[in-house]
Amino acid sequence: MNPQPTSTPPDIIRAAYAELIVTDLAASRAFYVGVLGLVVTHEDDEAIYLRAFEEYLHHSLVLRLGPVAALAALAYRVRSQDEVAVAADYYRELGVRVEPRAVGATRGIGEAVRVEDPLGFPVEFFYDAEHVERFTRRYDVHGAGAISRLDHFNVMTPDVEAARAYHEALGFTVSEDIQDSAGTTYAAWMYRKPTVHDVALTGGDGPRMHHIAFATHEQHQILHICDHLGALRQSDKIERGPGRHGVSNAFYLYLRDPDGHRIEIYTQDYYTGDPDNPTLTWDVHDNQRRDWWGNPVVPSWYSEASAVLDLDGVVRPLVARTEPAEAAVTIGADGFSYTREGEPSPEYKLGHQL
Amino acid sequence: MNPQPTSTPPDIIRAAYAELIVTDLAASRAFYVGVLGLVVTHEDDEAIYLRAFEEYLHHSLVLRLGPVAALAALAYRVRSQDEVAVAADYYRELGVRVEPRAVGATRGIGEAVRVEDPLGFPVEFFYDAEHVERFTRRYDVHGAGAISRLDHFNVMTPDVEAARAYHEALGFTVSEDIQDSAGTTYAAWMYRKPTVHDVALTGGDGPRMHHIAFATHEQHQILHICDHLGALRQSDKIERGPGRHGVSNAFYLYLRDPDGHRIEIYTQDYYTGDPDNPTLTWDVHDNQRRDWWGNPVVPSWYSEASAVLDLDGVVRPLVARTEPAEAAVTIGADGFSYTREGEPSPEYKLGHQL
Amino acid sequence: MNPQPTSTPPDIIRAAYAELIVTDLAASRAFYVGVLGLVVTHEDDEAIYLRAFEEYLHHSLVLRLGPVAALAALAYRVRSQDEVAVAADYYRELGVRVEPRAVGATRGIGEAVRVEDPLGFPVEFFYDAEHVERFTRRYDVHGAGAISRLDHFNVMTPDVEAARAYHEALGFTVSEDIQDSAGTTYAAWMYRKPTVHDVALTGGDGPRMHHIAFATHEQHQILHICDHLGALRQSDKIERGPGRHGVSNAFYLYLRDPDGHRIEIYTQDYYTGDPDNPTLTWDVHDNQRRDWWGNPVVPSWYSEASAVLDLDGVVRPLVARTEPAEAAVTIGADGFSYTREGEPSPEYKLGHQL
Amino acid sequence: MNPQPTSTPPDIIRAAYAELIVTDLAASRAFYVGVLGLVVTHEDDEAIYLRAFEEYLHHSLVLRLGPVAALAALAYRVRSQDEVAVAADYYRELGVRVEPRAVGATRGIGEAVRVEDPLGFPVEFFYDAEHVERFTRRYDVHGAGAISRLDHFNVMTPDVEAARAYHEALGFTVSEDIQDSAGTTYAAWMYRKPTVHDVALTGGDGPRMHHIAFATHEQHQILHICDHLGALRQSDKIERGPGRHGVSNAFYLYLRDPDGHRIEIYTQDYYTGDPDNPTLTWDVHDNQRRDWWGNPVVPSWYSEASAVLDLDGVVRPLVARTEPAEAAVTIGADGFSYTREGEPSPEYKLGHQL
Ligand SMILES: [Ca+2]
Ligand SMILES: [Fe+2]
Ligand SMILES: [Fe+2]
Ligand SMILES: [Fe+2]
Ligand SMILES: [Fe+2]
Repeated sequence: MNPQPTSTPPDIIRAAYAELIVTDLAASRAFYVGVLGLVVTHEDDEAIYLRAFEEYLHHSLVLRLGPVAALAALAYRVRSQDEVAVAADYYRELGVRVEPRAVGATRGIGEAVRVEDPLGFPVEFFYDAEHVERFTRRYDVHGAGAISRLDHFNVMTPDVEAARAYHEALGFTVSEDIQDSAGTTYAAWMYRKPTVHDVALTGGDGPRMHHIAFATHEQHQILHICDHLGALRQSDKIERGPGRHGVSNAFYLYLRDPDGHRIEIYTQDYYTGDPDNPTLTWDVHDNQRRDWWGNPVVPSWYSEASAVLDLDGVVRPLVARTEPAEAAVTIGADGFSYTREGEPSPEYKLGHQL
Repeated sequence: MNPQPTSTPPDIIRAAYAELIVTDLAASRAFYVGVLGLVVTHEDDEAIYLRAFEEYLHHSLVLRLGPVAALAALAYRVRSQDEVAVAADYYRELGVRVEPRAVGATRGIGEAVRVEDPLGFPVEFFYDAEHVERFTRRYDVHGAGAISRLDHFNVMTPDVEAARAYHEALGFTVSEDIQDSAGTTYAAWMYRKPTVHDVALTGGDGPRMHHIAFATHEQHQILHICDHLGALRQSDKIERGPGRHGVSNAFYLYLRDPDGHRIEIYTQDYYTGDPDNPTLTWDVHDNQRRDWWGNPVVPSWYSEASAVLDLDGVVRPLVARTEPAEAAVTIGADGFSYTREGEPSPEYKLGHQL
Repeated sequence: MNPQPTSTPPDIIRAAYAELIVTDLAASRAFYVGVLGLVVTHEDDEAIYLRAFEEYLHHSLVLRLGPVAALAALAYRVRSQDEVAVAADYYRELGVRVEPRAVGATRGIGEAVRVEDPLGFPVEFFYDAEHVERFTRRYDVHGAGAISRLDHFNVMTPDVEAARAYHEALGFTVSEDIQDSAGTTYAAWMYRKPTVHDVALTGGDGPRMHHIAFATHEQHQILHICDHLGALRQSDKIERGPGRHGVSNAFYLYLRDPDGHRIEIYTQDYYTGDPDNPTLTWDVHDNQRRDWWGNPVVPSWYSEASAVLDLDGVVRPLVARTEPAEAAVTIGADGFSYTREGEPSPEYKLGHQL
Repeated sequence: MNPQPTSTPPDIIRAAYAELIVTDLAASRAFYVGVLGLVVTHEDDEAIYLRAFEEYLHHSLVLRLGPVAALAALAYRVRSQDEVAVAADYYRELGVRVEPRAVGATRGIGEAVRVEDPLGFPVEFFYDAEHVERFTRRYDVHGAGAISRLDHFNVMTPDVEAARAYHEALGFTVSEDIQDSAGTTYAAWMYRKPTVHDVALTGGDGPRMHHIAFATHEQHQILHICDHLGALRQSDKIERGPGRHGVSNAFYLYLRDPDGHRIEIYTQDYYTGDPDNPTLTWDVHDNQRRDWWGNPVVPSWYSEASAVLDLDGVVRPLVARTEPAEAAVTIGADGFSYTREGEPSPEYKLGHQL
């Protein structure tokens, strides 16, 4: 990637929608509509356009049928239609590929631009979008696990510090991060809207999509999603959690969709909208950083993530992380985690399982 | 033990209190009062007497200072003072040791009887007890993790079928159990009051106390207890959960007190009070039986349990389980578990952890 | 009614089902199935048989089409089939009308007996009943306002003290009541199963059915039912609440079904199963007795109730209450209520509304 | 007030703190600390400085001892220290009184400015403020009714349309309002941060402070506050609710502090941060606008509000509303409200009470 552009970055409002390639629309529909209860704005043989109950734009998730499960785009909304052109100019100056998108290139979305960002992710910037009914008060269709809105993206990238610098230049601010005493950064959470994040950067071989996250209002709605999957004999779609994050303080659950895409359900992080919002740095060895209750992270959560496509729809090759891996430094012979600094942990917190 | 008595068994109402030997009263107090919020009825240099917010008897838990952490007694309440004598006669006929207890032998408790039951547990039967203020509506002292009442005992015993027969003779009914296709029973849940259980029988080397369980009204109260332990940097007291049980359908959490005694916090099992309440048998290989969400059971939960004392206060020797162990048949090279019968499970449900 | 029988009363387990006459089955179905989410066991042109998610008997509510909205029967389950005959004998000795019911006289119910009880209510006693699937773990069909089970009946009767004596003879115990300093009883809560009540006696012109109540697990499920009715533009079906009862300490909501039958949704009263469970008497002038938050009771709640049928299906004439009415002594010029005894209340707690 | 200024308005972030004059600090402390659980940053003989659990600025509420209960200031935070001067210039151009505030004029707050805004309210703009510990994860001190942060102010003003225009010029956007078919505006909700509001304008004799509102995470935390007040025999501090707002969709509760200041506890409105966030206009006759469940608004809620002080500490005289009053057009002989347009409502929704 080129040096830092001199032009102004686009004024990004928030993480707005993701486009996922899925290999079986019916299976995906059973998960996203049948279990998660997302509202179908439109569906046809090629794609399903979904939104959550408090969203009034056409969609916050597109499931598009394709041969290989992958991420096709992460879309940010910008503050006005003019900012789409600002984004195009900015990324052209960055020297990455930039593709204009005509009105309706994605159903419900106006003239937009997609770029291959310097980290290798397919990213869209848009403003114009079709408005649809906001189901905020449609309690007649809210299920027991009602989801309110898309909250954030989480991307896996080898060099978290570089990714952080790139996002800071783009106007994102770090709310929390995970470091070690040597200064290595393992992950960072960055926001535009005043929540803990719109995008999280997770250190690992990349570019890959680690997960996208939707928000509920209350914790019991997340618990119900687990119960619901149990009732369907699909508890194996629950990968990690539910639990309380240390980072973000949110209550969370990680699911795997029928293609293995990871979906987080998330609630109750905190307001970050003041300019002096304190940044919180966690020690990578603090066993409460990823789960405030100290419950072990499952290995797949660290190692697996979705392939991402370039703008031609070709899967991106991976670049390996060269800095230490969070799993390696926290678990097993070469790592350690503590509940109270300097004290050994009980076996059941070490992640050794039968 | 002798053949089945011909005399009538005592009319047991419910699991009523446990007496635990703890080695540091201050540390125990910090856990049971500081974190769990139990109400202190009385405390002195030798013991702390605790109750939950909806209980009006003197205590449902006694923490008594002693040299070795152990269970000193599981106490059942019987329907009248006369039933105490009925219990004494019944156990004498069973041929086990029976000790009368004078009024106040345990503070707050009337004339009672303690026995060494045929499974090797120290069990008390009592009716008379001091009444104290019921804090049902004392919301000024209810914390965010308010506990309502003691719910059940869980004991580890080598031969679950024998233990079940013994409890059936005593008037308990099985609500649910875990078996394999060969008919081996791994665990059974048995009740007197119309809930899923007053006592659960867990197959393993015994006699040991697996856990005692307290009930809350709502799930969020259990989640708060986890959050609270995190805030105190004591997340290592969270051993397993929170989660949804398959068996009992209750929402649960397992903690370890400062002496390692296991305490469950539990809510929302179901009514069993009709005589034809259906018994539910789970396949030991069903990965949703212990956790409806399929989350792995930590090894310590299967292997560790509290020593129990005889009526002289001496730790009971263990008798090994000779039938297959639940952990062995469900996990690892010699075991298997399924989410959907006949299908392999994903790695993160197998209990393999980093 | 005759003097107290010398024969043994039937061994009643609990309030088990109600049969309501409704005038429009489709409208009733929209309410009980569409909003409350009850499970349809059977329906035809004449009746709908409903159960809640944790119930395994054929139904806990029968809605039967008829010309006049009324209560057709309150049914108690007894401990065995033999107890049905015991009930018949007991009521014959009481001198009231007793009608045997053949198997299937009510679909799903075995041989039973219906009586016109001494208070004028049509009451059934049954044991045999068809078992159906228990939906305890069917979270795929549990809505956000999931109801677990029928909890209790509430009947309006002129002489609460007489009604209390009649129920005590029948084996019910009072958990709580409302009295004044002169000893007049305004209401009493009486139980067989170990909850606050199976039947509540409300002083007023009777016999009328004040309400029947279903239980949920958590408070948010009750709040959702309100939200759901708002979304359907049927908020006028919400008569009173949600709120916290003083009596019983339960969280509550009163709805009116399409025929005006009052349905309570109720959660989290307390365990009463020990023989020495303390009885709690509330002062009728205590403004927290009916609502712990002191919110005013709406007038209709005191004055309106469902007609009841005799065993020929004819509406029972009313007998007027001769003792003071609770509404009269607590509100308005002739009454008073206090938050703290001896202090005046603010206007918004007096029930004066614009 | 002068014509619209030509200068730029200050860049306001959000409603940040209120300063209330109270007449008994101990009584206020018992309410705000004892019941609401706010954290004391500082207290002395003259004032108590309070914050909620997720706030890191010195305070979001100042309770200052004074002879007459009143509002002393509503403080907005601006985006930088420079914006304080921008605010001063803007209000000077508006022709209202502007008073600079030295560092520490309010403890914990830097150099600021207070104005008598054109509506007659004492309003402060500040940026610099002392940072204190953010108690987000201090679950050891979170009570069952834990409050997260200040959410909004609600002011009573005679001419809502003028007040709306003034706030729009200041950069606020309307999320929702209440109007009648003749175009009269009864109330409007306006935001800077991306929630439903930072300030609500309520039509009525003014300037008066209608209420200030704090947010919790979940509904049960609000219910607990009611239970807690009941336990303290202070249920008469509950003025209205709990309920679900139509406007904002938030779950709410209105309390009256010991001086009669109205405090709302509020949770779960929705995200408004996109520029095209749809504005929602409610018909004043829609009985679900103020309470989605149709429960009547108590008269005091419409008629009572706190006096406001000018910058000399003198109570502002009231200007009467000349347009129709919401209470008058919705209740009683001259008003009407509907659940479904064109249909009569049941008695218990009309607000007629015993
Ligand atoms: Ca809840
Ligand atoms: Fe996430
Ligand atoms: Fe248990
Ligand atoms: Fe009731
Ligand atoms: Fe408000």
